[in-house]
Amino acid sequence: MKEIQKNKGAVYCNLGAWERLSETIKKINPSKIFVLTDTNTKVLCLSLFMTNFDFSEQVVVLEINEGEINKNIETCLGLWNQLSEKRADRNSLLINLGGGVVTDLGGFVASTFKRGISFINIPTTLLSMVDASVGGKNGVDLGVLKNQIGIINNPEITLIDTEFLKTLPINQLNSGYAEMLKHGIIHSEEYWNEVKDFDITDIKNIEDTLWKSVLIKNVVITKDPLEKGIRKTLNFGHTLGHAIESYFIKNKGVKTLMHGEAVAIGMILASYISNKTTGLSKTTTEDITKNILKSFSKTSFSQKDIENIISLLIYDKKNNNGKILFVLLNEIGNCKLNCEVPNNLILEAFKFYKNYK
Amino acid sequence: MKEIQKNKGAVYCNLGAWERLSETIKKINPSKIFVLTDTNTKVLCLSLFMTNFDFSEQVVVLEINEGEINKNIETCLGLWNQLSEKRADRNSLLINLGGGVVTDLGGFVASTFKRGISFINIPTTLLSMVDASVGGKNGVDLGVLKNQIGIINNPEITLIDTEFLKTLPINQLNSGYAEMLKHGIIHSEEYWNEVKDFDITDIKNIEDTLWKSVLIKNVVITKDPLEKGIRKTLNFGHTLGHAIESYFIKNKGVKTLMHGEAVAIGMILASYISNKTTGLSKTTTEDITKNILKSFSKTSFSQKDIENIISLLIYDKKNNNGKILFVLLNEIGNCKLNCEVPNNLILEAFKFYKNYK
Repeated sequence: MKEIQKNKGAVYCNLGAWERLSETIKKINPSKIFVLTDTNTKVLCLSLFMTNFDFSEQVVVLEINEGEINKNIETCLGLWNQLSEKRADRNSLLINLGGGVVTDLGGFVASTFKRGISFINIPTTLLSMVDASVGGKNGVDLGVLKNQIGIINNPEITLIDTEFLKTLPINQLNSGYAEMLKHGIIHSEEYWNEVKDFDITDIKNIEDTLWKSVLIKNVVITKDPLEKGIRKTLNFGHTLGHAIESYFIKNKGVKTLMHGEAVAIGMILASYISNKTTGLSKTTTEDITKNILKSFSKTSFSQKDIENIISLLIYDKKNNNGKILFVLLNEIGNCKLNCEVPNNLILEAFKFYKNYK
Repeated sequence: MKEIQKNKGAVYCNLGAWERLSETIKKINPSKIFVLTDTNTKVLCLSLFMTNFDFSEQVVVLEINEGEINKNIETCLGLWNQLSEKRADRNSLLINLGGGVVTDLGGFVASTFKRGISFINIPTTLLSMVDASVGGKNGVDLGVLKNQIGIINNPEITLIDTEFLKTLPINQLNSGYAEMLKHGIIHSEEYWNEVKDFDITDIKNIEDTLWKSVLIKNVVITKDPLEKGIRKTLNFGHTLGHAIESYFIKNKGVKTLMHGEAVAIGMILASYISNKTTGLSKTTTEDITKNILKSFSKTSFSQKDIENIISLLIYDKKNNNGKILFVLLNEIGNCKLNCEVPNNLILEAFKFYKNYK
């Protein structure tokens, strides 16, 4: 059985996982069970959940509109009010069934309702399985600024069932794949080589590779739960990735980028910057760039786009005292934290990305 | 020196307290210092703060509208946006200068901004000094429902300077006095006898009696930080008190009651119910009622008021599985938790309150 066992924050994957869910709920003995879905997962994932869930008759289903654009305080307010109207009390349980928006937002709603009720995460996208399933980060966006409001608080357990991945279109799978590639880059040559050659649409055989990604994230987070040091490596590609994502959310006319697609670009840019400043070899920079672009078609940026993206960097949560800090690479599996990067090098990196063939 | 020393959540009172504040801030070494005030404390308390504060030149002042009616998520959203615009980062510090609304709401804003920045509380009302200064509860109201959204998270330190009490009108002092009376009732005959005869307007001599109240609350919370047992005793008088407060906030035309005024009524009602169910003697019930009414003039309730108040009890955070649970008394200093009370006894208690002379 695939499991990460902790008092709170345990993760179970596939074989035996639904049984563990039942045992956990018996232990919690909740006064009511709420299941949070979004407009997508209510249609695509709820019936699989209900089939496997031993307490499906007791479930009260809640629904929010899908998409990052709804990951905000207004949506939380709607849910807090619904929980209140539907008589949730401190012993109620919230099960978050969905992608990162549902698990991040639902985790925050549960953690703050009546100063905290129990919650369980069932990620249904590849991104949320490999990214949001461990670490306890939850929260919502503030305007276009990602995850500015939230806390760190673990769910009782997280259940991963790769069956849910069959509901996903290819761009959604790719979005999670970007995080798996990142885990390879920050962790080891071995996992990088495994994941870069993996066909992400091969759901039947995804379990082992996906689980290694979860374990890598778990090791990092266990060592540094409060993100004082090594946990920052998980932000590789995210400093520019988040700014790119925010920019395109703000300017919907321009183009819509998924989280993983933005991070994929951010990783190429960070690799280029690493090559110029922290000694990442040209060969590895090429290896990273080439393999990312195998799955992620290129996005074009105007000069104005790039300037606006750079101006968004100031809001990055890793910043300190007005300095914008990057995670860079010495080599695969070896990161350098808190690197200051001058703007002209960022511009150069965008040029490298644009001209790469 | 009067101090409760903990790693996080220390409390300092009067002599030496401002020096401790300076030391703490040097240790935190914040990138920026924000001070949250409301429309009252900005006028009445900010100059005393600035005079005593060693880093006053670095301060960025934030302001919210005063009053419980503004203790909501919309006000939080305004502050999160202001912090973001004014370039607060993870190493920024928020100092909450004000009554319970400012410290509760400011604590929640800080605890959730970028997943948590440091904050310090400087309570300026008697109520917030004796009630909100220990325990780490923070949060906001949801509509008329009190403190439905929040978490438990301690400030770095809390500074009490009784000099601030000179800014308060008598009804504000009484509001805090109700909590001190409560601490007497739930804790010991000795403190009850001290506090019931204390003249709350005697600010010059308030320090010792006030500090005992802080210490009582601290003992309770240290024993039971997560409110599984004994901490619930602090809710004595609050089950009906909160419902009464919520009802009058909702129906502003009827009357405005301060928190302590509502709790004062709640304590009389709970004492009557205790006399009928948990063996509180008639003499003690009289003693409690008489001494509370010395400072709190009676409020009249219509039959409709009472029915509406009872219907609000269902939202109390202490409830479990639809049962409304009261904290009652066996005697002064001896509480019984999780007591179910039938509605007709609540109605009877209101009648007792109405007819008491």
